[in-house]
Amino acid sequence: MVDVAALVEQAREGRPRAVARLISLVENAAPQLRDVMAALSPHTGNAYTVGLTGSPGVGKSTSTSALVSAYRRLGKRVGVLAVDPSSPFSGGALLGDRVRMQDHATDPEVFIRSMATRGHLGGLSWAAPQALRVLDGAGCDVVLVETVGVGQSEVEVAAQADTTVVLLAPGMGDGIQAAKAGILEIGDVFVVNKADRDGADATARELNHMLGLGGARQAGDWRPPVVKTVAARGEGVDEVVDALEKHRGWLAASGELADRRRRRAAQEVEAITLAALRARIGDLRGDRHLHALAEQVAAGRLDPYAAADVLIAELTA
Amino acid sequence: MVDVAALVEQAREGRPRAVARLISLVENAAPQLRDVMAALSPHTGNAYTVGLTGSPGVGKSTSTSALVSAYRRLGKRVGVLAVDPSSPFSGGALLGDRVRMQDHATDPEVFIRSMATRGHLGGLSWAAPQALRVLDGAGCDVVLVETVGVGQSEVEVAAQADTTVVLLAPGMGDGIQAAKAGILEIGDVFVVNKADRDGADATARELNHMLGLGGARQAGDWRPPVVKTVAARGEGVDEVVDALEKHRGWLAASGELADRRRRRAAQEVEAITLAALRARIGDLRGDRHLHALAEQVAAGRLDPYAAADVLIAELTA
Repeated sequence: MVDVAALVEQAREGRPRAVARLISLVENAAPQLRDVMAALSPHTGNAYTVGLTGSPGVGKSTSTSALVSAYRRLGKRVGVLAVDPSSPFSGGALLGDRVRMQDHATDPEVFIRSMATRGHLGGLSWAAPQALRVLDGAGCDVVLVETVGVGQSEVEVAAQADTTVVLLAPGMGDGIQAAKAGILEIGDVFVVNKADRDGADATARELNHMLGLGGARQAGDWRPPVVKTVAARGEGVDEVVDALEKHRGWLAASGELADRRRRRAAQEVEAITLAALRARIGDLRGDRHLHALAEQVAAGRLDPYAAADVLIAELTA
Repeated sequence: MVDVAALVEQAREGRPRAVARLISLVENAAPQLRDVMAALSPHTGNAYTVGLTGSPGVGKSTSTSALVSAYRRLGKRVGVLAVDPSSPFSGGALLGDRVRMQDHATDPEVFIRSMATRGHLGGLSWAAPQALRVLDGAGCDVVLVETVGVGQSEVEVAAQADTTVVLLAPGMGDGIQAAKAGILEIGDVFVVNKADRDGADATARELNHMLGLGGARQAGDWRPPVVKTVAARGEGVDEVVDALEKHRGWLAASGELADRRRRRAAQEVEAITLAALRARIGDLRGDRHLHALAEQVAAGRLDPYAAADVLIAELTA
């Protein structure tokens, strides 16, 4: 029996085990999740969320770790959500489970958690916003969402943050890749990492050029900056934080912050709604109605759309 | 304006262009799809569907092509659906669009089509069964579903076929990989391709051993055979066809064929139902209800589950 009220209280006090357990409830789509979200909700909305995305090898984990250090120097409580399409659920009491993040594993003001996407009940669109909500409710000032994969859904998660950082590295043909993947449109801040390598300036120039082609902007529009870093040595990381804080200021002043958060909430509500409807269909699976319908479809006596109509009528009865 | 009745009639006569246009309607989730499926439905249920899955590099396309040749020698009309997670929609009038399949591109009794999964409206679970239905309705005796990716959804599609073939190659540590990916459970026939390479016997042995560990089987249960092939030279391919035909006979005799097809139809109906409900939520997006709900969730005044309850009540009103 999970004592939701006690867990939420402990999480709000910043106890890592309570935060870890709440995120596990999210991952496992536990029945108590409803109560957890109801209890957490009034305490959310304070965390600034930053999504980090980019191809494998650009140094996302190193950059995330460097950003954690930078925000810790500013005295902020930091949450990290690493979305990995292949990793199994981490579970357990310890939040810190990523090698690159070892530096922060013993810091009580840093919460690190990786989430798997593969085989996740209801998918990432459903779980990630709720895990964010837990870290938000646990008093994190900043939550970094690092997406390890390059799949569409991972990019979407990063794009759901208040600010989206797109990472690139020189000499990977990343400019063209970024344009292809539609990453150019989602980036609020671009980082060319491994800037000590040949071609860093060319990559930054190419990026700036492509961003300039994005059409005439309105006055007051945000022009995404391109920052060069060597995250492994911490170089340029303070400049990234500066760029993030500038974007955060612009978000608040322009009204875009409220818009983005409303859109994110709408997606979350939609995902929960669909999961609930899917569960209702699941309940019907054992039911002779769906069984009989499927049999008729398999035999060609009924087309699948007509069968779906019957199902929708039953669900909405 | 699409003349659905004429298209379906032409597809039933086996005209490649009509088949291609119908699959394009599936890919584009065209509004006429409903009518297409209603018109095709009475003519479906005759095709034997075979899913082929396995890691990149095991020779899936070569094996598929060799199987097409083998079934053509038996005088069968063959359809191929290549599910590629990254390829863009192929579109156009020609069905044959895969390099390895060039041998069959001019054969009027072979229909080849690749489908992309990325960014697909409603996902693969929705599109693949309907594309299968088109090839079935077009009089294909056998439809091979080749999944190029290794993602969960691609594996699921292969597993939805009447018979699922899992391909492996020696020296790729594939045995363990297969066990990990849960591929051992879904295979009805296992093929060790590239059997002229070192380690083929060991891989086949390891597989047979692992399949034997699957627990005590009931009398009459299917014991998945392991067949060795060199698909590029056509070696062992007739043995694969023999294994497939044996499995097909077992499916029919055991009642499992009807069960599998009913389950597949149930999944298809479920996917169409969810897509329809998702579209209804989409209609609500412009609606001030969802807008207002999301605003309250973003502000922490309402939790997302309570908001979803309101939405579900609206959808099912």
